[in-house]
Amino acid sequence: MSNSNPVSLDLLNKFKHASSATISSTLAKKGYRFIYMAGIRPLKPGAKLVGRAITLRYLPSREDHVVSPDSRQSYAQQIALEKMGEGDVLVVDARGNLDSGIFGDLYVARIGFRKSAGVVTDGCFRDAPYLRTVDFPCFASSVHGHAHATQHWAVDVNLPVSCGNVLVNPGDVIVGDDDGVVVVPKEIAEEVCEISVTQESKEEFLRDLLEQGEPVQRFDVDPFTDELESRYQSWKKSKTG
Amino acid sequence: MSNSNPVSLDLLNKFKHASSATISSTLAKKGYRFIYMAGIRPLKPGAKLVGRAITLRYLPSREDHVVSPDSRQSYAQQIALEKMGEGDVLVVDARGNLDSGIFGDLYVARIGFRKSAGVVTDGCFRDAPYLRTVDFPCFASSVHGHAHATQHWAVDVNLPVSCGNVLVNPGDVIVGDDDGVVVVPKEIAEEVCEISVTQESKEEFLRDLLEQGEPVQRFDVDPFTDELESRYQSWKKSKTG
Amino acid sequence: MSNSNPVSLDLLNKFKHASSATISSTLAKKGYRFIYMAGIRPLKPGAKLVGRAITLRYLPSREDHVVSPDSRQSYAQQIALEKMGEGDVLVVDARGNLDSGIFGDLYVARIGFRKSAGVVTDGCFRDAPYLRTVDFPCFASSVHGHAHATQHWAVDVNLPVSCGNVLVNPGDVIVGDDDGVVVVPKEIAEEVCEISVTQESKEEFLRDLLEQGEPVQRFDVDPFTDELESRYQSWKKSKTG
Amino acid sequence: MSNSNPVSLDLLNKFKHASSATISSTLAKKGYRFIYMAGIRPLKPGAKLVGRAITLRYLPSREDHVVSPDSRQSYAQQIALEKMGEGDVLVVDARGNLDSGIFGDLYVARIGFRKSAGVVTDGCFRDAPYLRTVDFPCFASSVHGHAHATQHWAVDVNLPVSCGNVLVNPGDVIVGDDDGVVVVPKEIAEEVCEISVTQESKEEFLRDLLEQGEPVQRFDVDPFTDELESRYQSWKKSKTG
Amino acid sequence: MSNSNPVSLDLLNKFKHASSATISSTLAKKGYRFIYMAGIRPLKPGAKLVGRAITLRYLPSREDHVVSPDSRQSYAQQIALEKMGEGDVLVVDARGNLDSGIFGDLYVARIGFRKSAGVVTDGCFRDAPYLRTVDFPCFASSVHGHAHATQHWAVDVNLPVSCGNVLVNPGDVIVGDDDGVVVVPKEIAEEVCEISVTQESKEEFLRDLLEQGEPVQRFDVDPFTDELESRYQSWKKSKTG
Amino acid sequence: MSNSNPVSLDLLNKFKHASSATISSTLAKKGYRFIYMAGIRPLKPGAKLVGRAITLRYLPSREDHVVSPDSRQSYAQQIALEKMGEGDVLVVDARGNLDSGIFGDLYVARIGFRKSAGVVTDGCFRDAPYLRTVDFPCFASSVHGHAHATQHWAVDVNLPVSCGNVLVNPGDVIVGDDDGVVVVPKEIAEEVCEISVTQESKEEFLRDLLEQGEPVQRFDVDPFTDELESRYQSWKKSKTG
Repeated sequence: MSNSNPVSLDLLNKFKHASSATISSTLAKKGYRFIYMAGIRPLKPGAKLVGRAITLRYLPSREDHVVSPDSRQSYAQQIALEKMGEGDVLVVDARGNLDSGIFGDLYVARIGFRKSAGVVTDGCFRDAPYLRTVDFPCFASSVHGHAHATQHWAVDVNLPVSCGNVLVNPGDVIVGDDDGVVVVPKEIAEEVCEISVTQESKEEFLRDLLEQGEPVQRFDVDPFTDELESRYQSWKKSKTG
Repeated sequence: MSNSNPVSLDLLNKFKHASSATISSTLAKKGYRFIYMAGIRPLKPGAKLVGRAITLRYLPSREDHVVSPDSRQSYAQQIALEKMGEGDVLVVDARGNLDSGIFGDLYVARIGFRKSAGVVTDGCFRDAPYLRTVDFPCFASSVHGHAHATQHWAVDVNLPVSCGNVLVNPGDVIVGDDDGVVVVPKEIAEEVCEISVTQESKEEFLRDLLEQGEPVQRFDVDPFTDELESRYQSWKKSKTG
Repeated sequence: MSNSNPVSLDLLNKFKHASSATISSTLAKKGYRFIYMAGIRPLKPGAKLVGRAITLRYLPSREDHVVSPDSRQSYAQQIALEKMGEGDVLVVDARGNLDSGIFGDLYVARIGFRKSAGVVTDGCFRDAPYLRTVDFPCFASSVHGHAHATQHWAVDVNLPVSCGNVLVNPGDVIVGDDDGVVVVPKEIAEEVCEISVTQESKEEFLRDLLEQGEPVQRFDVDPFTDELESRYQSWKKSKTG
Repeated sequence: MSNSNPVSLDLLNKFKHASSATISSTLAKKGYRFIYMAGIRPLKPGAKLVGRAITLRYLPSREDHVVSPDSRQSYAQQIALEKMGEGDVLVVDARGNLDSGIFGDLYVARIGFRKSAGVVTDGCFRDAPYLRTVDFPCFASSVHGHAHATQHWAVDVNLPVSCGNVLVNPGDVIVGDDDGVVVVPKEIAEEVCEISVTQESKEEFLRDLLEQGEPVQRFDVDPFTDELESRYQSWKKSKTG
Repeated sequence: MSNSNPVSLDLLNKFKHASSATISSTLAKKGYRFIYMAGIRPLKPGAKLVGRAITLRYLPSREDHVVSPDSRQSYAQQIALEKMGEGDVLVVDARGNLDSGIFGDLYVARIGFRKSAGVVTDGCFRDAPYLRTVDFPCFASSVHGHAHATQHWAVDVNLPVSCGNVLVNPGDVIVGDDDGVVVVPKEIAEEVCEISVTQESKEEFLRDLLEQGEPVQRFDVDPFTDELESRYQSWKKSKTG
Repeated sequence: MSNSNPVSLDLLNKFKHASSATISSTLAKKGYRFIYMAGIRPLKPGAKLVGRAITLRYLPSREDHVVSPDSRQSYAQQIALEKMGEGDVLVVDARGNLDSGIFGDLYVARIGFRKSAGVVTDGCFRDAPYLRTVDFPCFASSVHGHAHATQHWAVDVNLPVSCGNVLVNPGDVIVGDDDGVVVVPKEIAEEVCEISVTQESKEEFLRDLLEQGEPVQRFDVDPFTDELESRYQSWKKSKTG
């Protein structure tokens, strides 16, 4: 399972056409329930997050663990940030701690420059006044002005972690929007993407019908009847045409 | 008590001139304290919700309760949605569960078409990216991408329910805004509306005075002195004139 | 310690150039950790709060404590409001209670007229529909439509209190923004302000560098190397020049 | 499904030989996960609860719902209590409310006389000083001195309810011990009992082996090897012999 | 109101014949609801607490407030302890904080020697291994090994405080048992005691009847019929005779 | 730091003479605050736990991670159990999850046979009815009947983990009692033990004095005056003599 290639940027781009809710439903049909992070939202409403997970694990701070000038280069937090490239999402396991930020404006400026795709944590960001002015997807449980060392010590990079009460393996696909954040195991990412993007399009079609007064009993017909399928194909053409 | 007629659309329209906070104060004066839902907000800040309650009760899902194609027509969720008409608010008792949505875009599109007044739940909505683009009042504790069946099984319609830790009887008046959601027992709705709308207008008058520097001791004078009443009447004329 | 003069309006104005996060870091370097309020946000995102604390303590309401017309003048809530002047922030210890507001539009209109700097509470505001239309900094844990007497009885003014799980002494400096609210003990306010404003400026400079691709290892260099200091001085001139 | 006969007293007696944990495992193997109540414990450590569910639903109290002398006979609480007979467990849906008791000594004395099997609620008992002196199984989230009317209004009997975040249908089998409380859907109660009692016995055998030093890898062998089965049969004989 | 004499030791002794639940009911009939502490239990199950409140207020610790050897004598904690005499209960407002103890074995040994009646806090005790070996009533939310200074700074004595979400005035009567802790305003203590002790005795009588099979409808008859009153009087004689 | 030898059985035995509260105070004097687990208690009141940490990390379960018969031998849970020897405490990072047990009777029987010192988790045990009958120290947040796989997947052994919101390194000393659980970094274990055992003895002496009526001001004298030291030495002799 772990030998699979990294998810491609093409596939990530395709994931942008499906919502986290639709992907959750696709995964449910395949038997996955433990894949949706609890209570994590974008700092900027409307933000969309899609990328491959690079994981960073924080543990509670303790007074005998301090980052000295000498050890800074090998501090897990620094290593994780410098690993980030195009399409990567940093997933920070902060144990749901709401009493300090995980980092703020400077780190986001750094990984934004590195073209990474975003950050998600079950902890908090700091420097919200700045973060709300930039177009970099930051998903978190909340915000807090304290620096991370008041509560956290960064301990390792790219081990499996917990974030928002779900498991994240390095390389898994992360998709976030206003509903929250879903994790797609990388081994099934392509199939899940395919199904979800089609489903998303069909639901948009159904929504159009419903807004025009089609009765409710129809809308969870699954699969589509031939007649509905044919109307859907016409609708789709009219959209893209 | 239970034989009273449904609250009229006229009365619902009048309720739009009073805030949930002012209605809460009116009810407090009449001895009601258990009438304000805890922690429920509009998905779109600024939304205003007024309508008559149709109640829908969800219970925890269990593996021996599933909606089959055959049973779908008689599923409580479907029955509730098709009951909704002009002036109706769907009140979904979701036991404060934050681990899945109660429903999302398709159902809202359906009941929006049916001209219903809105939805309130102590659970979550899903499809927030869509719901935030439409003008349909959705009040909830939070949002979540999971479909309702991961946590809920819809069990009955128009029984008394709990929502946001307060009792809601079918037909009660629901008023929501940025402060939250208040429930007005239908038997006293007319009287409560009358008092609240007048009070709202008087408070707006007092707020004007206070913004211009009238000292604080005056503003909770109740009842108005003759002099204040006379100033209020002039202010009111100037507003509507 | 308690004989120190009140913090000046000049110093308060200077504090506006530092974020609550940066001030938290300054205080951390001086050994202060218990100075950041938990879970308190501005009602209007983007609001900035700076002022001296006037404290008001609420206790749970009890049926033998009621404000009569005769006692209203000496009610702690009224006394606190009338104390408020330019640069003052009202800090209301509401014990983190989320089941009623502390007050709403009328009181805010009153203290807004008195040119006070804002209000912060670990309870709730009511009348959010109005408060979101005015430019008066209101920081709270949440909102609720109930009037304060359903949960609170105002008991005394300008004693030390707890707010958001931190101690606030009357006269302490309160600084709030989108991250939350920090408390600066008044005895060290001047020094903390000096350091924080300089730090804020340096971090803005570093952020500029990082956005242009300077590698991450540099940005927590503390103190600046001579070369960095010199670049910083040029950057600063270019900003203000 | 709902036409099934009530679970017999014989079957209930047999259930006493399986723990709630073992029954949870049996149900898990049959695909049931939503069957274990969260955070509910016996008032008296060591108590064992087994019976058929009679359900009672409480809603939040509201000032227009009061039990008058005339309506007392038809109050849902009274009706439920008088329904209780041998082998019955009262399941009280109290919405997880921890701010009042559901009832106390007098009601327990009454249903104890009626030979019922016990009470379980996700709310609280009151009169713990008395309840801890009698041998009647009371399972709850906590205790509180307030009478139920301060928070609750009993609304109906023998509808499906939620208790401890799981669904309970009238007639389901309830098994509680120091671990908590499990709900067995009545339709599969016989099969679940059979499997669980056998499993319990096998685990007791394995525990004996482990206490004597058998290595850990063996103990979740499932099914038993012939050799293990034979040792188990001997062990069983030695127990009952 | 505040000029009333302290509650006498005789009255405190009489209070020992009523449970906190029965006193809660008496207060409810007099219109008091905000008088029962939430979630506070005896460290030793079965303990009974009765006394007059001496209040001690803790605030969050802050690094500029430390108890030096010179200031120790005037530290609020020391002052409160030395005030304690026969019949006094120390009520420590610890803001519901569960992250440190309020104090432990040494302080309890001290106030135990002073013949005080007990301690109640909405925080934690430390030194539970010792406290569970002595017969001194300690009521708290939980236990924790940290000393109080890690979270608290004792700030004043005998002001009104909050404990377990209810108001406590100095001199109020505190009654605790396995259900929790009730606060009786001192002005009405005598009347409340009288009613509660009688009610307790009548309920014991009813419990006896119910245990022998009297039907449930009878037991909340209030007031007693002549026949019931007469049976009660005989029962009472047989108890005391 | 990490090259230090394992803590000896002799030192562990000595730790048994100090309470978790006293050790917390010793660590506080050395600048350590983040060393006391939150909300973790012995299943059997009065239990004492002392040992060296072996850590086991659980992550949220996910449907693509299952323990097959083939992979069982290499499952982290099995590896950890078989590592346990005399003086070892298993520390299970269960992320504070209260919705399933980490394991139950069989595993405890196994590691009890291996003479290990105990188990501590911020999750739950299952099989409490059995665990409460044996003398093996089990410390946890709560109990639950579900097997671990319903919520957890064991992922690695002897990495640093979080338990009860504090960091635990493999080899750290764990001391638990009725107050809770403290973690002593192994590098300073010897010194902390020395100081704590002496302090414990001195506090027992002071407690004796206080119980006999010595005034409160004396008892936190630190260091002892010559006179007190001399009395303490006599007291000690009388104890051990």
